[in-house]
Amino acid sequence: MSGSLTIAGLGPGHEALVTPEVSAALAAATDIVGYAPYVARVPERAGLARHASDNRMELQRAGEALRLASEGRNVIVVSSGDPGVFAMASAVFEALEQQPQWQALPIRVLPGVTAMLAAAARAGAPLGHDFCAINLSDNLKPWPMIEKRLRLAAEADFSIAMYNPRSATRPEGFARVLEVLNEAGCGERVVIFARAISTAEEHIETLSLRQARPEMADMRTLVIVGNSATRRVGRWVYAPRHAR
Amino acid sequence: MSGSLTIAGLGPGHEALVTPEVSAALAAATDIVGYAPYVARVPERAGLARHASDNRMELQRAGEALRLASEGRNVIVVSSGDPGVFAMASAVFEALEQQPQWQALPIRVLPGVTAMLAAAARAGAPLGHDFCAINLSDNLKPWPMIEKRLRLAAEADFSIAMYNPRSATRPEGFARVLEVLNEAGCGERVVIFARAISTAEEHIETLSLRQARPEMADMRTLVIVGNSATRRVGRWVYAPRHAR
Repeated sequence: MSGSLTIAGLGPGHEALVTPEVSAALAAATDIVGYAPYVARVPERAGLARHASDNRMELQRAGEALRLASEGRNVIVVSSGDPGVFAMASAVFEALEQQPQWQALPIRVLPGVTAMLAAAARAGAPLGHDFCAINLSDNLKPWPMIEKRLRLAAEADFSIAMYNPRSATRPEGFARVLEVLNEAGCGERVVIFARAISTAEEHIETLSLRQARPEMADMRTLVIVGNSATRRVGRWVYAPRHAR
Repeated sequence: MSGSLTIAGLGPGHEALVTPEVSAALAAATDIVGYAPYVARVPERAGLARHASDNRMELQRAGEALRLASEGRNVIVVSSGDPGVFAMASAVFEALEQQPQWQALPIRVLPGVTAMLAAAARAGAPLGHDFCAINLSDNLKPWPMIEKRLRLAAEADFSIAMYNPRSATRPEGFARVLEVLNEAGCGERVVIFARAISTAEEHIETLSLRQARPEMADMRTLVIVGNSATRRVGRWVYAPRHAR
Protein backbone atom coordinates (compact mmCIF):
# COMPACT_ATOMS: atom_id res chain seq x y z
CA MET A 1 0.00 0.00 0.00
CA SER A 2 1.37 3.40 -0.88
CA GLY A 3 1.03 6.21 1.61
CA SER A 4 0.30 9.87 1.14
CA LEU A 5 0.73 13.16 2.93
CA THR A 6 -1.91 15.89 2.94
CA ILE A 7 -1.38 19.25 4.62
CA ALA A 8 -4.81 20.64 5.43
CA GLY A 9 -6.24 23.86 6.87
CA LEU A 10 -9.10 23.52 9.35
CA GLY A 11 -10.16 27.16 9.09
CA PRO A 12 -10.46 29.56 12.01
CA GLY A 13 -12.52 27.33 14.30
CA HIS A 14 -16.14 26.79 13.29
CA GLU A 15 -17.06 23.57 11.48
CA ALA A 16 -19.02 25.48 8.86
CA LEU A 17 -15.73 27.05 7.73
CA VAL A 18 -13.99 23.73 7.00
CA THR A 19 -14.02 23.14 3.24
CA PRO A 20 -15.65 19.93 1.93
CA GLU A 21 -12.26 19.09 0.38
CA VAL A 22 -10.64 19.04 3.81
CA SER A 23 -13.55 17.16 5.40
CA ALA A 24 -13.28 14.45 2.74
CA ALA A 25 -9.52 14.16 3.30
CA LEU A 26 -10.00 13.83 7.07
CA ALA A 27 -12.60 11.09 6.51
CA ALA A 28 -10.13 9.08 4.40
CA ALA A 29 -7.09 9.50 6.67
CA THR A 30 -5.41 6.89 8.80
CA ASP A 31 -3.31 9.37 10.80
CA ILE A 32 -3.75 12.97 11.95
CA VAL A 33 -0.59 14.85 12.90
CA GLY A 34 -0.48 18.32 14.43
CA TYR A 35 -0.36 20.72 17.34
CA ALA A 36 -2.58 19.25 20.07
CA PRO A 37 -5.44 21.82 19.99
CA TYR A 38 -5.82 21.36 16.23
CA VAL A 39 -5.67 17.55 16.35
CA ALA A 40 -8.40 17.75 19.01
CA ARG A 41 -10.69 19.38 16.43
CA VAL A 42 -10.74 16.13 14.39
CA PRO A 43 -13.28 13.71 15.92
CA GLU A 44 -11.99 10.33 17.06
CA ARG A 45 -13.07 7.30 15.08
CA ALA A 46 -12.06 3.64 14.72
CA GLY A 47 -9.00 3.27 12.52
CA LEU A 48 -7.79 6.83 13.00
CA ALA A 49 -4.54 7.43 14.88
CA ARG A 50 -4.13 10.94 16.25
CA HIS A 51 -0.58 12.23 16.86
CA ALA A 52 -0.67 15.42 18.92
CA SER A 53 2.46 17.41 19.66
CA ASP A 54 3.48 20.62 21.40
CA ASN A 55 3.80 24.02 19.84
CA ARG A 56 7.23 24.86 18.32
CA MET A 57 7.76 21.23 17.31
CA GLU A 58 6.95 21.99 13.67
CA LEU A 59 9.97 20.42 12.02
CA GLN A 60 9.93 17.22 14.11
CA ARG A 61 6.20 16.93 13.51
CA ALA A 62 6.69 17.33 9.76
CA GLY A 63 9.36 14.63 9.78
CA GLU A 64 7.11 12.27 11.70
CA ALA A 65 4.31 12.85 9.20
CA LEU A 66 6.60 12.13 6.25
CA ARG A 67 7.89 8.97 7.93
CA LEU A 68 4.36 7.69 8.56
CA ALA A 69 3.42 8.39 4.93
CA SER A 70 6.54 6.55 3.74
CA GLU A 71 5.33 3.55 5.74
CA GLY A 72 2.11 3.48 3.74
CA ARG A 73 -0.18 5.54 5.97
CA ASN A 74 -2.57 8.21 4.67
CA VAL A 75 -1.45 11.08 6.82
CA ILE A 76 -3.03 14.51 7.30
CA VAL A 77 -1.03 17.29 8.88
CA VAL A 78 -3.56 19.74 10.28
CA SER A 79 -3.16 23.47 10.81
CA SER A 80 -5.62 26.06 11.98
CA GLY A 81 -6.70 28.50 9.28
CA ASP A 82 -4.77 27.98 6.06
CA PRO A 83 -1.79 25.60 6.23
CA GLY A 84 0.33 27.84 4.01
CA VAL A 85 0.07 31.03 6.10
CA PHE A 86 2.47 30.93 9.07
CA ALA A 87 1.59 27.27 9.56
CA MET A 88 2.69 23.72 8.81
CA ALA A 89 3.11 23.65 5.02
CA SER A 90 6.49 25.41 5.03
CA ALA A 91 7.74 23.10 7.77
CA VAL A 92 6.80 20.03 5.72
CA PHE A 93 8.69 21.27 2.67
CA GLU A 94 11.68 22.13 4.86
CA ALA A 95 11.66 18.56 6.20
CA LEU A 96 11.26 17.25 2.65
CA GLU A 97 14.31 19.20 1.55
CA GLN A 98 16.32 17.62 4.34
CA GLN A 99 15.04 14.10 3.53
CA PRO A 100 15.06 13.81 -0.27
CA GLN A 101 14.18 10.11 -0.12
CA TRP A 102 10.60 11.19 0.63
CA GLN A 103 10.23 13.53 -2.35
CA ALA A 104 8.45 10.84 -4.39
CA LEU A 105 5.58 10.63 -1.88
CA PRO A 106 2.20 11.92 -3.07
CA ILE A 107 1.79 15.25 -1.29
CA ARG A 108 -1.16 17.67 -1.41
CA VAL A 109 -1.77 21.01 0.26
CA LEU A 110 -5.46 21.84 0.90
CA PRO A 111 -6.15 25.54 1.49
CA GLY A 112 -8.39 26.90 4.22
CA VAL A 113 -9.89 30.14 5.48
CA THR A 114 -6.97 31.87 7.18
CA ALA A 115 -7.52 33.95 10.33
CA MET A 116 -7.17 37.33 8.63
CA LEU A 117 -9.99 36.55 6.18
CA ALA A 118 -12.31 35.39 8.96
CA ALA A 119 -11.45 38.45 11.05
CA ALA A 120 -11.87 40.80 8.10
CA ALA A 121 -15.28 39.31 7.25
CA ARG A 122 -16.51 39.85 10.81
CA ALA A 123 -15.29 43.46 10.80
CA GLY A 124 -16.52 44.37 7.31
CA ALA A 125 -13.95 44.65 4.52
CA PRO A 126 -10.68 46.00 5.96
CA LEU A 127 -8.65 43.98 3.40
CA GLY A 128 -10.52 45.34 0.39
CA HIS A 129 -7.46 47.27 -0.80
CA ASP A 130 -3.74 46.30 -0.94
CA PHE A 131 -2.49 44.76 2.30
CA CYS A 132 0.27 42.76 3.90
CA ALA A 133 0.44 39.97 6.48
CA ILE A 134 3.22 39.95 9.07
CA ASN A 135 3.94 37.29 11.68
CA LEU A 136 4.94 39.25 14.79
CA SER A 137 6.63 36.31 16.48
CA ASP A 138 10.39 36.71 16.61
CA ASN A 139 11.04 33.00 17.15
CA LEU A 140 11.92 32.67 13.50
CA LYS A 141 13.37 36.03 12.51
CA PRO A 142 15.28 38.89 14.09
CA TRP A 143 13.18 41.57 15.77
CA PRO A 144 14.64 44.47 13.73
CA MET A 145 13.29 42.80 10.57
CA ILE A 146 9.78 43.03 12.01
CA GLU A 147 10.19 46.74 12.76
CA LYS A 148 11.61 47.41 9.31
CA ARG A 149 8.67 45.65 7.65
CA LEU A 150 6.17 47.59 9.74
CA ARG A 151 7.76 50.90 8.72
CA LEU A 152 7.82 49.97 5.04
CA ALA A 153 4.23 48.68 5.21
CA ALA A 154 3.15 52.01 6.71
CA GLU A 155 5.04 53.89 4.00
CA ALA A 156 3.38 51.74 1.31
CA ASP A 157 0.01 52.50 2.95
CA PHE A 158 -0.85 48.82 3.14
CA SER A 159 -3.48 47.59 5.55
CA ILE A 160 -1.53 45.31 7.88
CA ALA A 161 -2.77 41.94 9.17
CA MET A 162 -0.70 40.87 12.17
CA TYR A 163 -0.49 37.22 13.25
CA ASN A 164 0.78 36.04 16.66
CA PRO A 165 0.85 39.55 18.12
CA ARG A 166 2.01 38.57 21.59
CA SER A 167 4.53 35.76 21.67
CA ALA A 168 5.10 34.00 24.96
CA THR A 169 8.81 34.72 24.77
CA ARG A 170 8.45 38.44 24.04
CA PRO A 171 5.22 39.88 25.48
CA GLU A 172 6.72 43.38 25.22
CA GLY A 173 7.06 43.05 21.43
CA PHE A 174 3.53 44.12 20.63
CA ALA A 175 3.89 47.31 22.70
CA ARG A 176 6.87 48.12 20.50
CA VAL A 177 4.81 47.35 17.35
CA LEU A 178 2.24 49.94 18.40
CA GLU A 179 5.03 52.47 19.09
CA VAL A 180 6.63 51.90 15.69
CA LEU A 181 3.32 52.38 13.90
CA ASN A 182 2.50 55.50 15.93
CA GLU A 183 5.95 56.90 15.09
CA ALA A 184 5.28 56.10 11.43
CA GLY A 185 2.26 58.39 11.50
CA CYS A 186 -0.45 55.74 11.78
CA GLY A 187 -1.98 57.02 15.03
CA GLU A 188 -5.34 57.88 13.48
CA ARG A 189 -5.64 54.62 11.59
CA VAL A 190 -8.41 52.18 12.50
CA VAL A 191 -7.28 49.01 14.31
CA ILE A 192 -9.31 45.82 14.71
CA PHE A 193 -8.57 43.31 17.46
CA ALA A 194 -10.27 40.07 16.43
CA ARG A 195 -10.01 37.24 18.92
CA ALA A 196 -10.97 33.58 18.36
CA ILE A 197 -13.23 34.43 15.43
CA SER A 198 -15.99 31.89 14.71
CA THR A 199 -15.58 30.21 18.13
CA ALA A 200 -17.60 30.60 21.34
CA GLU A 201 -14.91 32.98 22.65
CA GLU A 202 -15.16 35.32 19.68
CA HIS A 203 -14.54 38.96 20.55
CA ILE A 204 -13.95 41.90 18.27
CA GLU A 205 -12.97 45.45 19.13
CA THR A 206 -12.34 48.45 16.87
CA LEU A 207 -10.57 51.66 17.85
CA SER A 208 -7.84 54.01 16.66
CA LEU A 209 -4.21 52.94 16.77
CA ARG A 210 -3.48 55.73 19.23
CA GLN A 211 -6.04 54.21 21.63
CA ALA A 212 -4.78 50.63 21.22
CA ARG A 213 -3.12 48.98 24.24
CA PRO A 214 -0.77 45.99 24.08
CA GLU A 215 -2.88 43.93 26.47
CA MET A 216 -5.79 44.02 24.01
CA ALA A 217 -4.03 41.22 22.09
CA ASP A 218 -3.05 37.69 23.02
CA MET A 219 -1.93 34.71 20.93
CA ARG A 220 -5.51 34.02 19.78
CA THR A 221 -5.91 37.57 18.46
CA LEU A 222 -5.53 38.64 14.87
CA VAL A 223 -4.87 42.37 14.59
CA ILE A 224 -5.65 44.37 11.46
CA VAL A 225 -4.39 47.93 11.10
CA GLY A 226 -6.25 49.82 8.40
CA ASN A 227 -4.63 51.91 5.70
CA SER A 228 -4.86 55.71 5.71
CA ALA A 229 -8.28 55.63 4.00
CA THR A 230 -9.89 52.83 6.03
CA ARG A 231 -13.16 54.06 7.50
CA ARG A 232 -16.13 53.11 9.60
CA VAL A 233 -19.73 52.94 8.48
CA GLY A 234 -22.08 52.04 11.31
CA ARG A 235 -20.56 49.06 13.10
CA TRP A 236 -18.49 48.13 10.05
CA VAL A 237 -14.93 48.90 8.97
CA TYR A 238 -13.87 48.90 5.34
CA ALA A 239 -10.99 49.87 3.09
CA PRO A 240 -12.31 51.81 0.09
CA ARG A 241 -11.58 50.21 -3.27
CA HIS A 242 -10.38 53.54 -4.64
CA ALA A 243 -7.13 55.27 -3.67
CA ARG A 244 -5.79 58.64 -4.80
CA MET B 1 -40.90 39.97 6.28
CA SER B 2 -37.49 41.45 7.02
CA GLY B 3 -34.77 41.11 4.45
CA SER B 4 -31.06 40.48 4.80
CA LEU B 5 -27.86 40.93 2.86
CA THR B 6 -25.06 38.36 2.83
CA ILE B 7 -21.78 38.92 1.00
CA ALA B 8 -20.31 35.50 0.26
CA GLY B 9 -17.11 34.11 -1.23
CA LEU B 10 -17.46 31.15 -3.61
CA GLY B 11 -13.79 30.21 -3.43
CA PRO B 12 -11.49 29.86 -6.45
CA GLY B 13 -13.74 27.66 -8.56
CA HIS B 14 -14.14 24.05 -7.39
CA GLU B 15 -17.27 23.14 -5.43
CA ALA B 16 -15.20 21.33 -2.81
CA LEU B 17 -13.67 24.70 -1.88
CA VAL B 18 -17.01 26.37 -1.08
CA THR B 19 -17.47 26.47 2.70
CA PRO B 20 -20.57 24.81 4.18
CA GLU B 21 -21.45 28.22 5.64
CA VAL B 22 -21.68 29.71 2.15
CA SER B 23 -23.54 26.67 0.76
CA ALA B 24 -26.16 26.98 3.51
CA ALA B 25 -26.56 30.70 2.82
CA LEU B 26 -27.03 30.06 -0.91
CA ALA B 27 -29.66 27.41 -0.15
CA ALA B 28 -31.66 29.90 1.95
CA ALA B 29 -31.41 32.87 -0.43
CA THR B 30 -34.17 34.39 -2.52
CA ASP B 31 -31.83 36.48 -4.69
CA ILE B 32 -28.27 36.11 -5.98
CA VAL B 33 -26.51 39.28 -7.13
CA GLY B 34 -23.11 39.42 -8.78
CA TYR B 35 -20.83 39.49 -11.78
CA ALA B 36 -22.35 37.14 -14.37
CA PRO B 37 -19.70 34.34 -14.30
CA TYR B 38 -19.98 34.09 -10.51
CA VAL B 39 -23.80 34.14 -10.48
CA ALA B 40 -23.64 31.32 -13.06
CA ARG B 41 -21.84 29.19 -10.45
CA VAL B 42 -24.99 29.11 -8.30
CA PRO B 43 -27.41 26.46 -9.65
CA GLU B 44 -30.88 27.60 -10.69
CA ARG B 45 -33.78 26.52 -8.53
CA ALA B 46 -37.43 27.46 -8.08
CA GLY B 47 -37.84 30.59 -5.98
CA LEU B 48 -34.34 31.87 -6.63
CA ALA B 49 -33.90 35.07 -8.65
CA ARG B 50 -30.45 35.52 -10.19
CA HIS B 51 -29.30 39.07 -10.98
CA ALA B 52 -26.19 38.99 -13.15
CA SER B 53 -24.32 42.14 -14.07
CA ASP B 54 -21.22 43.17 -15.97
CA ASN B 55 -17.77 43.66 -14.54
CA ARG B 56 -16.99 47.16 -13.19
CA MET B 57 -20.60 47.61 -12.07
CA GLU B 58 -19.67 46.98 -8.44
CA LEU B 59 -21.26 50.01 -6.84
CA GLN B 60 -24.53 49.82 -8.81
CA ARG B 61 -24.68 46.09 -8.06
CA ALA B 62 -24.14 46.72 -4.34
CA GLY B 63 -26.92 49.32 -4.35
CA GLU B 64 -29.28 46.92 -6.12
CA ALA B 65 -28.51 44.24 -3.53
CA LEU B 66 -29.20 46.64 -0.64
CA ARG B 67 -32.45 47.76 -2.23
CA LEU B 68 -33.64 44.17 -2.68
CA ALA B 69 -32.78 43.41 0.95
CA SER B 70 -34.67 46.53 2.09
CA GLU B 71 -37.70 45.15 0.25
CA GLY B 72 -37.61 42.01 2.37
CA ARG B 73 -35.57 39.69 0.15
CA ASN B 74 -32.77 37.44 1.43
CA VAL B 75 -30.02 38.53 -0.87
CA ILE B 76 -26.57 37.04 -1.42
CA VAL B 77 -23.92 39.05 -3.19
CA VAL B 78 -21.44 36.54 -4.60
CA SER B 79 -17.75 37.02 -5.28
CA SER B 80 -15.13 34.59 -6.46
CA GLY B 81 -12.55 33.68 -3.81
CA ASP B 82 -13.03 35.72 -0.65
CA PRO B 83 -15.49 38.62 -0.86
CA GLY B 84 -13.22 40.88 1.21
CA VAL B 85 -10.11 40.65 -1.00
CA PHE B 86 -10.41 42.92 -4.05
CA ALA B 87 -14.04 41.92 -4.35
CA MET B 88 -17.60 42.95 -3.52
CA ALA B 89 -17.54 43.51 0.25
CA SER B 90 -15.87 46.95 0.05
CA ALA B 91 -18.33 48.03 -2.64
CA VAL B 92 -21.30 47.07 -0.44
CA PHE B 93 -19.99 49.11 2.49
CA GLU B 94 -19.30 52.03 0.16
CA ALA B 95 -22.92 51.87 -1.04
CA LEU B 96 -24.09 51.57 2.57
CA GLU B 97 -22.18 54.73 3.47
CA GLN B 98 -23.95 56.58 0.66
CA GLN B 99 -27.39 55.24 1.66
CA PRO B 100 -27.52 55.39 5.46
CA GLN B 101 -31.21 54.41 5.50
CA TRP B 102 -30.06 50.83 4.85
CA GLN B 103 -27.60 50.64 7.74
CA ALA B 104 -30.15 48.87 9.96
CA LEU B 105 -30.37 45.89 7.58
CA PRO B 106 -28.92 42.59 8.84
CA ILE B 107 -25.64 42.20 6.94
CA ARG B 108 -23.14 39.35 7.07
CA VAL B 109 -19.84 38.74 5.28
CA LEU B 110 -18.93 35.07 4.75
CA PRO B 111 -15.25 34.46 4.05
CA GLY B 112 -13.91 32.15 1.37
CA VAL B 113 -10.68 30.70 0.03
CA THR B 114 -9.10 33.59 -1.85
CA ALA B 115 -7.13 32.99 -5.06
CA MET B 116 -3.69 33.51 -3.50
CA LEU B 117 -4.30 30.76 -0.92
CA ALA B 118 -5.49 28.29 -3.56
CA ALA B 119 -2.54 29.16 -5.80
CA ALA B 120 -0.07 28.92 -2.93
CA ALA B 121 -1.41 25.52 -1.89
CA ARG B 122 -0.99 24.16 -5.41
CA ALA B 123 2.59 25.48 -5.61
CA GLY B 124 3.67 24.42 -2.10
CA ALA B 125 3.98 27.10 0.57
CA PRO B 126 5.18 30.36 -1.04
CA LEU B 127 3.19 32.42 1.51
CA GLY B 128 4.73 30.72 4.54
CA HIS B 129 6.60 33.87 5.54
CA ASP B 130 5.52 37.56 5.59
CA PHE B 131 3.82 38.64 2.37
CA CYS B 132 1.68 41.28 0.73
CA ALA B 133 -1.20 41.28 -1.74
CA ILE B 134 -1.41 43.93 -4.43
CA ASN B 135 -4.19 44.49 -6.95
CA LEU B 136 -2.38 45.42 -10.17
CA SER B 137 -5.43 46.95 -11.79
CA ASP B 138 -5.15 50.71 -12.09
CA ASN B 139 -8.89 51.24 -12.52
CA LEU B 140 -9.11 52.22 -8.88
CA LYS B 141 -5.77 53.82 -8.08
CA PRO B 142 -3.03 55.76 -9.84
CA TRP B 143 -0.36 53.66 -11.52
CA PRO B 144 2.58 55.31 -9.66
CA MET B 145 1.08 54.03 -6.40
CA ILE B 146 1.35 50.46 -7.72
CA GLU B 147 5.02 50.96 -8.63
CA LYS B 148 5.78 52.53 -5.25
CA ARG B 149 4.18 49.62 -3.42
CA LEU B 150 6.10 47.08 -5.49
CA ARG B 151 9.40 48.81 -4.66
CA LEU B 152 8.60 48.98 -0.95
CA ALA B 153 7.43 45.35 -0.95
CA ALA B 154 10.72 44.32 -2.53
CA GLU B 155 12.66 46.35 0.04
CA ALA B 156 10.64 44.74 2.87
CA ASP B 157 11.45 41.33 1.32
CA PHE B 158 7.79 40.35 1.29
CA SER B 159 6.54 37.61 -0.94
CA ILE B 160 4.13 39.39 -3.27
CA ALA B 161 0.76 38.01 -4.39
CA MET B 162 -0.49 39.93 -7.41
CA TYR B 163 -4.18 39.99 -8.36
CA ASN B 164 -5.55 41.10 -11.76
CA PRO B 165 -2.09 41.23 -13.35
CA ARG B 166 -3.25 42.22 -16.82
CA SER B 167 -6.13 44.64 -16.87
CA ALA B 168 -8.03 45.05 -20.12
CA THR B 169 -7.42 48.78 -20.08
CA ARG B 170 -3.66 48.55 -19.50
CA PRO B 171 -2.20 45.32 -20.86
CA GLU B 172 1.29 46.92 -20.78
CA GLY B 173 1.09 47.40 -17.01
CA PHE B 174 2.30 43.92 -16.14
CA ALA B 175 5.40 44.30 -18.33
CA ARG B 176 6.22 47.39 -16.27
CA VAL B 177 5.62 45.42 -13.04
CA LEU B 178 8.25 42.89 -14.09
CA GLU B 179 10.66 45.73 -14.98
CA VAL B 180 10.17 47.44 -11.63
CA LEU B 181 10.82 44.23 -9.74
CA ASN B 182 13.88 43.42 -11.85
CA GLU B 183 15.22 46.93 -11.21
CA ALA B 184 14.56 46.38 -7.48
CA GLY B 185 16.95 43.42 -7.53
CA CYS B 186 14.36 40.63 -7.61
CA GLY B 187 15.58 39.01 -10.84
CA GLU B 188 16.60 35.75 -9.18
CA ARG B 189 13.41 35.42 -7.18
CA VAL B 190 11.02 32.55 -7.88
CA VAL B 191 7.77 33.51 -9.61
CA ILE B 192 4.62 31.38 -9.81
CA PHE B 193 1.99 31.93 -12.49
CA ALA B 194 -1.15 30.18 -11.26
CA ARG B 195 -4.09 30.27 -13.67
CA ALA B 196 -7.68 29.22 -12.92
CA ILE B 197 -6.67 27.10 -9.95
CA SER B 198 -9.10 24.30 -9.04
CA THR B 199 -10.91 24.53 -12.40
CA ALA B 200 -10.58 22.40 -15.54
CA GLU B 201 -8.33 25.11 -17.04
CA GLU B 202 -5.87 25.02 -14.16
CA HIS B 203 -2.29 25.73 -15.18
CA ILE B 204 0.71 26.48 -13.04
CA GLU B 205 4.20 27.54 -14.06
CA THR B 206 7.25 28.34 -11.95
CA LEU B 207 10.36 30.18 -13.10
CA SER B 208 12.68 33.01 -12.12
CA LEU B 209 11.49 36.61 -12.33
CA ARG B 210 14.18 37.32 -14.91
CA GLN B 211 12.64 34.62 -17.16
CA ALA B 212 9.07 35.79 -16.66
CA ARG B 213 7.24 37.27 -19.67
CA PRO B 214 4.20 39.56 -19.50
CA GLU B 215 2.09 37.30 -21.70
CA MET B 216 2.37 34.49 -19.16
CA ALA B 217 -0.41 36.25 -17.20
CA ASP B 218 -4.00 37.10 -18.03
CA MET B 219 -6.93 38.20 -15.86
CA ARG B 220 -7.47 34.65 -14.56
CA THR B 221 -3.86 34.40 -13.37
CA LEU B 222 -2.68 34.94 -9.83
CA VAL B 223 1.04 35.71 -9.73
CA ILE B 224 3.18 35.10 -6.65
CA VAL B 225 6.71 36.49 -6.47
CA GLY B 226 8.76 34.79 -3.77
CA ASN B 227 10.90 36.57 -1.21
CA SER B 228 14.70 36.44 -1.37
CA ALA B 229 14.79 33.09 0.46
CA THR B 230 11.97 31.33 -1.40
CA ARG B 231 13.25 28.06 -2.80
CA ARG B 232 12.29 24.98 -4.73
CA VAL B 233 12.29 21.43 -3.48
CA GLY B 234 11.34 18.94 -6.18
CA ARG B 235 8.25 20.29 -7.92
CA TRP B 236 7.38 22.45 -4.91
CA VAL B 237 8.10 26.08 -3.99
CA TYR B 238 8.19 27.27 -0.40
CA ALA B 239 9.15 30.26 1.71
CA PRO B 240 11.25 29.12 4.66
CA ARG B 241 9.77 29.92 8.06
CA HIS B 242 13.11 31.30 9.25
CA ALA B 243 14.69 34.54 8.10
CA ARG B 244 18.03 36.05 9.08
